[in-house]
Formats: sequence, C-alpha cells, structure tokens
Amino acid sequence: MKKKLTLKQIARELDVSVSTVSKALRDSAEISEDTRQKIKAFAKLYNYKPNNIALSLKNRKTKTIGVIIPEIVHHFFTTVISGIEQEANQKGYHVIICMSNNSFDKEVINMELLANGSTDGFILSVAKETQQKQDYHHLNEVVNQGMPLVMFDRVIDGIKCDKVVIDDMNGARKAVRHLIDLDCRNIALITTVDYVSVGKLRTQGYLQALEENSMQIQEDLILKVEDFDSSEEEIAAFLENKDVDGVFAVNEHFAVYAIKALQKMGLSVPEDAYVIGFTNGELSKQFIPSLTTVSQHGAEMGAQAARLLIKKLENEEVEDGPYETIVVETELVERNSTKRVQKTEILKF
Amino acid sequence: MKKKLTLKQIARELDVSVSTVSKALRDSAEISEDTRQKIKAFAKLYNYKPNNIALSLKNRKTKTIGVIIPEIVHHFFTTVISGIEQEANQKGYHVIICMSNNSFDKEVINMELLANGSTDGFILSVAKETQQKQDYHHLNEVVNQGMPLVMFDRVIDGIKCDKVVIDDMNGARKAVRHLIDLDCRNIALITTVDYVSVGKLRTQGYLQALEENSMQIQEDLILKVEDFDSSEEEIAAFLENKDVDGVFAVNEHFAVYAIKALQKMGLSVPEDAYVIGFTNGELSKQFIPSLTTVSQHGAEMGAQAARLLIKKLENEEVEDGPYETIVVETELVERNSTKRVQKTEILKF
Repeated sequence: MKKKLTLKQIARELDVSVSTVSKALRDSAEISEDTRQKIKAFAKLYNYKPNNIALSLKNRKTKTIGVIIPEIVHHFFTTVISGIEQEANQKGYHVIICMSNNSFDKEVINMELLANGSTDGFILSVAKETQQKQDYHHLNEVVNQGMPLVMFDRVIDGIKCDKVVIDDMNGARKAVRHLIDLDCRNIALITTVDYVSVGKLRTQGYLQALEENSMQIQEDLILKVEDFDSSEEEIAAFLENKDVDGVFAVNEHFAVYAIKALQKMGLSVPEDAYVIGFTNGELSKQFIPSLTTVSQHGAEMGAQAARLLIKKLENEEVEDGPYETIVVETELVERNSTKRVQKTEILKF
Repeated sequence: MKKKLTLKQIARELDVSVSTVSKALRDSAEISEDTRQKIKAFAKLYNYKPNNIALSLKNRKTKTIGVIIPEIVHHFFTTVISGIEQEANQKGYHVIICMSNNSFDKEVINMELLANGSTDGFILSVAKETQQKQDYHHLNEVVNQGMPLVMFDRVIDGIKCDKVVIDDMNGARKAVRHLIDLDCRNIALITTVDYVSVGKLRTQGYLQALEENSMQIQEDLILKVEDFDSSEEEIAAFLENKDVDGVFAVNEHFAVYAIKALQKMGLSVPEDAYVIGFTNGELSKQFIPSLTTVSQHGAEMGAQAARLLIKKLENEEVEDGPYETIVVETELVERNSTKRVQKTEILKF
C-alpha cells in the first residue's frame, strides 16, 4: 500500500503548521497568497488528496467529543463514559458514543463516521480484534492529520497521543500480595488470553508478586480464558480437583464464577479460600460474599481523558505534542471475600 | 410561545409532500419553478425559518441512526443498544449514541446535535425530567419535520411515532400473581415515584393482580422510592417490622436490597419470603439466591426499534404514518428467590 501523504508531512516539509497547510488548501484568507500557492503546488506535486477529517477539523469547532468503546454491556466502560460526560459537559462539550463491538472494521468505520465533521477529537479504547491484528493505521491517520486522540485503558504503545491508563500490573500485584499476606500459598490466576493488553499486564502483576515473595510459579494454577461465553464452565472445570487457597481473577465475573465453582466443590469463601476480582462493579458490591476487588476508578479515568482532550482542542500550539500518559492509581477495595479467617483455629474444633 | 410553522404544515396547506417543501426551499431542480415559487412565497409570508433538521434530512442519507438514552450505567439500556446495533449493522446502518443523563436540557441539546446532519432518524427513551416537565416540543418538532422517530420503553402517548414498549403492567401482574400462587398474602411493592411511567405501570400491575385475587390493598406495604442513591436504606427502613411473605420490586437493585434487608431481620429468601425483581441483569443471575425476575428482552426491543426506524427511513411514502406500537412480551424467569418452600413442614420441625 502506497503511503498517503499527510497534512502533517506537508507541514513538516514546508516548515509551517498543520493548520496553515489545511487553511491554505481551503484557500483561507488567513494565509498569505504566497504561502498558499507554495503549499498548493507542493500538494499537487505529491498528489495529495485532502480528506474529510482534516478539512472538517480545521473548518469548524463542533464542541463535540467522539468516544469509541469496545463494549457497552460492561460496567467499567459505562463508568468511564459517565466520567467523560461529566467533565465534557462542565466544559461545554457534547459527547457522542459509538461502539466497536470489539471489531476492527467497526472501529475503523466509526472513526470515519465521527471524524467526518461531527466531532473535534476522539477518546478511544481499542477493540480486541485491533489488538490482535496490530493494525493501527486508522489511529495513526487521525493523529497525523492533527485530530486530537486520547486513548484509555486498552492503549497502543506506538501511537502518538495522550493516554490514560490504570496501572494494571501494579493493581494485580497489590491484589496477589494481599492474598500472600493472608497466608495463601496456592494462588490461582484466572485471566484472559495474552493479546488483551490488560489481561497480559494483570498476569504480569500476578507473576511479579509471586516472585517478589519467592513463591514458585505453578503453571497449572493459571487459566487463560478463551471465550467469555463459556467462561463459567471453563473456570469450574479448571478449579475442580485443584487445591487452591486463593484466587485472583482479572474481572468480577470470573471472580464470581470462581466462588460458585468452589462452593460446588463444597468449599466456602472466605473460610476455605480467598478470592479477589478486578473492576468494582455492582456484582462485586452486591454479591454474597461481597467481593474484594481492584477498583479501576473508571469515572476518574474518563474525566482525565476528557480533560486531556479538551486541553489539546483548546490549545492549538500543543498539536504536535508532547504527549502525556496519566496513570490512574488502582485501589484494593477489601470486602468479605478476603475477610481473614483464623484457619488453624477452625481446624482445631 | 408562538407556535412555529413547520414543513409539514406548509406541505398540508399547499397539498404537496414534506419532501417537496423541503426541496423547494433549497431551490432543488427536482421541483418545478412554479411550485418552488409558490412554496417560497408561502414560507416567506408566514415567516418560516427552515431549520437544520429538515434541510439536512432531505439533503442526504447518512445511513446513521441516533440513539438517545437516559442512562448508560444501566443493564437494560445497554442490552437495548446491543439489539439496535445488531439489527442496524445487518442492514448497513451505523449507530451513534448520546446520553441525556435524565436531564431535559441534555435531551433537547442531544437531539439538535444529532439531527444536525449526522443522522437520518432517532431511537429514544425519554429522560425522567422530560416526563416530569411534560414538555415534548423537541420530540414534536422532529416528527413534524418528517424525521422518523421511534420511542422505546419510556414512551409518550401523544407523540406521533412508532413505539416499542414492554407490557410493564402485565409483566408486573404476572410477577405478583406468581407470588399469590405461592400463597403469599402480604406482598410488598417496592416501586419508583409515579412520574416515571414504567414505575407507574408496574404499580398498576401489582394493584390489578391483588384485585383480581380479591386481596386487599395494604397501602403500608407500598414503598415509592424517591432517590435511587439512598434506596438501600429506604428499603431497609420500610421493611423493618413489616410482616411480609412476598416482595415485588420494580428493578433488580431494589429486589437485592430487599433480600439483604430481610436477611438482616433474620429472615431467609425463599424460606421466609419470596422476592421477584424486574430486569434480567447480571445481578439477578449471579446473586445468591438467584433472583426470579421479569425479563424485558432488551435486545429484542432494540432490534424491533431499529427495524421500525429503518422501515420508515427506506420508505418515503409512509412518512406520515400510520404508526405502529410493538409490545414486546415480558417473561417471568423463575429462579431460587421464589423456589417453593413447604412452609408448614418447616414449621412442624
């Protein structure tokens, strides 16, 4: 595929700003006749085709933020959206949401749809399929044309944009350390396949906590769930006949399924095993036993993402960076699923 | 407020279609010079100001559906969106979502935002505040200008548009009848204040089921929760010292709070009282005891709404109605919270 010349490349080549290039190509009177001619000649020479994104971007401010999320039936993403909404509304911005359904194609189409004059910039968490394919041309294109982008949670390292992440690795590490402090010696990890970046990072946190405490890594205590739809059965089959005294799960559903599986095996939580999940959703709060969990502060992440985007939108000078990455601290919310039980005493009686 | 002349009124007055009026006002060559002049003269005479909605609507097809929902951190609405997405994508439409946060102003602003060239039509569930204020001018305006609208769940009777509702009253009636069949005689209702239409309808279903079974309505067994944020405490205070053997709650959170309140009073569900909720969310499925609940089939509602809207969008002739209302049947999903217990036997031993 021939690489398309971008506004940004023209700007760099001619040593002018992206705005100047865009305005010149639209024949804006703000740009001197001389500069306009130079830019247009250059663009013509290199067969540059202006695309809608850049033109609409430079033409007008919509005061609208486009948000693209992988899934909507998901507590974490809905809390992030709440945070974005609140911050954006306070600053006079509207929010439009599209879903990628974790599909690469839908993500690309949604970006085109929203970039096409409806929005001033993007807040995005990439689709699983995009992570799998590692095709980020649509993200790079938007960035190259000077449309601000903020990625959150599932971010891609190479993309030049502001990012808001939680420290997934440390969140997981904290959780597993807590299990170790509770004298767990056989801690199971229930995670996702590695191409999901947050699953991978949480797995690393688990491994690191074990290593720091000189505990051996037992590969047979690690389950990488392939398919969410059959995860309940997968988890039950995995735990059967395993002698675990602690479980760390990378989301609240996996944690609840683990508790149910243990209960079916005749074990109680927290009496026989401690369980910690990730994502502080309704299920974690309402389930009995209530779940100890790593809270991601979704609303805070959303608010930070909106803050970063609006800062870029309202300050033309920072268009080319530098880019910030805000790390939102996770918090271990302790509840009944890790309530310390005096196990030796129970054994005595 | 002076009533604004609409495209539709001009069309009726001059006995032409809304499309013709819109095109004439844009000087479209599709309309004869004679008709154009007549329409423009009439519009001028009555000081008609074309607004963006109608113009963008007639100008082009965006193949995009705008969805406005009251809340996003809400299982039911996220399932409806999934249903809309699936149906729309199958038919080659995109979906853009905005949230009203239950605010009237945000609902109006979102409609303007999306009507302004981004979308071909709307799917909407109105904000609580809109129901409270009973101000529907924004909905009527869109409809009058020929932009298709489909309302779902929280619908407004007077608006001329297709609607998708669930039979809230019958759903509630079925649930309460089930409690009566289980020999409950003191059935509490935990509902919302009346201006929320679904709460009102579910309350009616409760009352009707009692009447049909010649059971007396006990006003002190009805709680109308004012504020969701303090509902857990409100429900606990309400149930305290009440001798109930059944509880019907209009959402799954209220049902879970009721179970917890009963447990704190030393009572068990289902042993001492049966509980039924509404909305078949994760909480209902995962809670222990799992919750018997009235399933609203959110995804099905979303799919039906998308189907109706696309039908209107693709058939210019049906622009003025007739309008359909699709009633999606609710289903009572029986789980452990109403598992029949032989109470007399328990009492014997």
